[in-house]
Order: sequence, then C-alpha cells, then structure tokens
Amino acid sequence: MQLHKRDVVEAATTLLDSYGIADLTMRRLARELDVSPGALYWHFANKQQLLGAVADRILESVDDVPGSWSDRIARICGRLRDALLSHTDGAELVSASFAAGQSKAMTLILTRLTNAAADAGVDAAHAGLAARTVVYYVLGFTADEQSRLQWDAAGAELPEEQSVLTEDPSARFAFGLALLVAGISARSPRVL
Amino acid sequence: MQLHKRDVVEAATTLLDSYGIADLTMRRLARELDVSPGALYWHFANKQQLLGAVADRILESVDDVPGSWSDRIARICGRLRDALLSHTDGAELVSASFAAGQSKAMTLILTRLTNAAADAGVDAAHAGLAARTVVYYVLGFTADEQSRLQWDAAGAELPEEQSVLTEDPSARFAFGLALLVAGISARSPRVL
Repeated sequence: MQLHKRDVVEAATTLLDSYGIADLTMRRLARELDVSPGALYWHFANKQQLLGAVADRILESVDDVPGSWSDRIARICGRLRDALLSHTDGAELVSASFAAGQSKAMTLILTRLTNAAADAGVDAAHAGLAARTVVYYVLGFTADEQSRLQWDAAGAELPEEQSVLTEDPSARFAFGLALLVAGISARSPRVL
Repeated sequence: MQLHKRDVVEAATTLLDSYGIADLTMRRLARELDVSPGALYWHFANKQQLLGAVADRILESVDDVPGSWSDRIARICGRLRDALLSHTDGAELVSASFAAGQSKAMTLILTRLTNAAADAGVDAAHAGLAARTVVYYVLGFTADEQSRLQWDAAGAELPEEQSVLTEDPSARFAFGLALLVAGISARSPRVL
C-alpha cells in the first residue's frame, strides 16, 4: 500500500494530540503507521521538515481576512492563537517550526501581518519587523497559556494566581494586541 | 556530607548548559551529585520547583535599573534577553517556570515592568497586562533567536534567511521593544 504524505501528516498530528511533542519521533510515527522509518524519509528529509508539515496542518484554519489593517492584525492573531491552542503543544511545535523556517503557513501569516503594518503606514524597512514583533507576542502569550492549560488538565498543582480559570485569557490577549496596534499606529507617519 | 540547596541548583545549571532541558531530570541530577533522588526531594518537592530555582539562578543578573520608564523597560528586557541567551535552552526553561509561577525572579521582573508602565501613565488595572505583553514579546523573541543559535551551533542546515548571522538580532529586538513602548505611551493619558 502506498504511503501518502498527507496520511503521514495526519498520523503525526494524532500522535502529537495524544502524547505531546516529546513523543513525536520518526521512529514512533513509523511504528504507528506500520511502515519502516525509511518510508517516512522518502517524504521528509528530517524531523524538522515533518514538524513543519504538522505546523502547516495546525495552521490550516488561519486563512486570509478582510478589513482595516488593525482588524486584520487582531483577527489573524486571534485565529493563530485558536489554532495553536487546538493541538497539544501546538505553540511549542509551531514556534520551533517558525524558528527553523520550515512552516510555509507561518511565512504566509508573517506576510499578511507585514502587509497590514505597511497599510498602517509603517515604512517598508520596518513593516516586517513590526509583523515579527506581533508574532513573537502571540507565540509567547500562547505558549504560556497552553502550558498552564495543559498542567491544569494534568491535575498539576499550580499557585492559584497562575490558574487560567481565574482570569479571562481572551481579554488579556486582546489587550496586548491593542497595545501593539497602538504602537504600530504611533510609528506610522499616516494619521488614521 | 550535607547537600546544600545552592549546590543542587549549581549542578542542575551545569547539567542544563551541557545537555539541555530534556536531560535535566531529578534522576540524572541525583546521579551527577552522587546522592539518592530522595535527597533532592528534601530541597525540591517536584521538578517544577527545581526548574524555578534554576530559572532564578539564570535571572540573577537581571537586577533593578534606574532611569525613565521607557529606559527601564528597554534595559530590563535587554538584560532578560542576555540572561536567557547565556544558558542552553534558557528561554524555554524560564518560560516554563514563569507559566508555572515558580520563578521568584520573573515575578520581580514583572513587578518592575508593571511599575514602569504605571509610571508611563497606564492605569492600575492595565499596567500589569502591559508588563505581561512586554514579557511575552521578550520570551517569544528570545526563544526564536535561541532555537536558531543552537541549531546553527549544532551544524543543522536551516534556510539561509533563518540564520541569525545574516541579520542584527539586537537591532530587531530593540525595534520590537520600541513598538511596545510607543504603544504604552499611546495608551497612557499622561503626555510625556
């Protein structure tokens, strides 16, 4: 039976959701699919490429959105956060793939945020940096939120003020984005 | 011979720097110190507490700084980034400890950034959120930077545009901070 790339990515995503990123290895994945590790390397030269494909699968729901530049930043980042939280260790996996330059979907998200910053009036030399600043905030915030959600789910005892249940994470997330949007506005020469 | 808490933290930090966070386990640490795992649990109830102590050790150099509120934000965050980059997997370890509420040093850094935001004129209800936004940016940026530095050091092949050597990470880091400072300024009722 032929092994399709898409099936490998689906199996890897299932493995991630069930056991977390530490157990997502080429060896384990081959065992799940009942194939030799060599069959996986036919599709993915190394683990980084596999993680990149899983990252792109996780980010499928983060599509393009219409609206003003600030609406687009808020909505793209909201979808990005939702997508990361929908999979075990999603923030960690996507961060690693982004750092390794292996996620096409993250490159596309960065381009859309760069365009939004440019539409805000940020000059071409800095629009990409502004977009990266937004992405780092989203990844940092969501990694923190997901850690606490997963520890809560695992029944770990955390200091009470750390429990995500005691605060409204969506409102906190939106506040940080509003701060970044205000910063982008302030740095743009165009009056909105 | 009595096992001092400080010696355990030093040995854990050495283990981290040599082998990374994945190999920093209570069992491995006990073996390095030539004690039983029980001797470690006398000082640390669980691994999260140990990681919190290592995080505090890593962050020792991030002390208080004088200056205007925006200078303080820039300098505290610059020292935080330097400290995280000084230890293998520093960003990942400190992020995890921060999420678990186990790092006293991160709590102190958050308080200092909150005070800086309050001095900028951000109201009390939002100064803490502004400080967290800044912290998430620093953690997200530095985790990304450290991943690429460590892959470069390990000789991993990354797409050329991902190599930290091709860009000036300190200037990029400073740009994002300036954006956040502009956002905090814009949200503050006080004219600076």
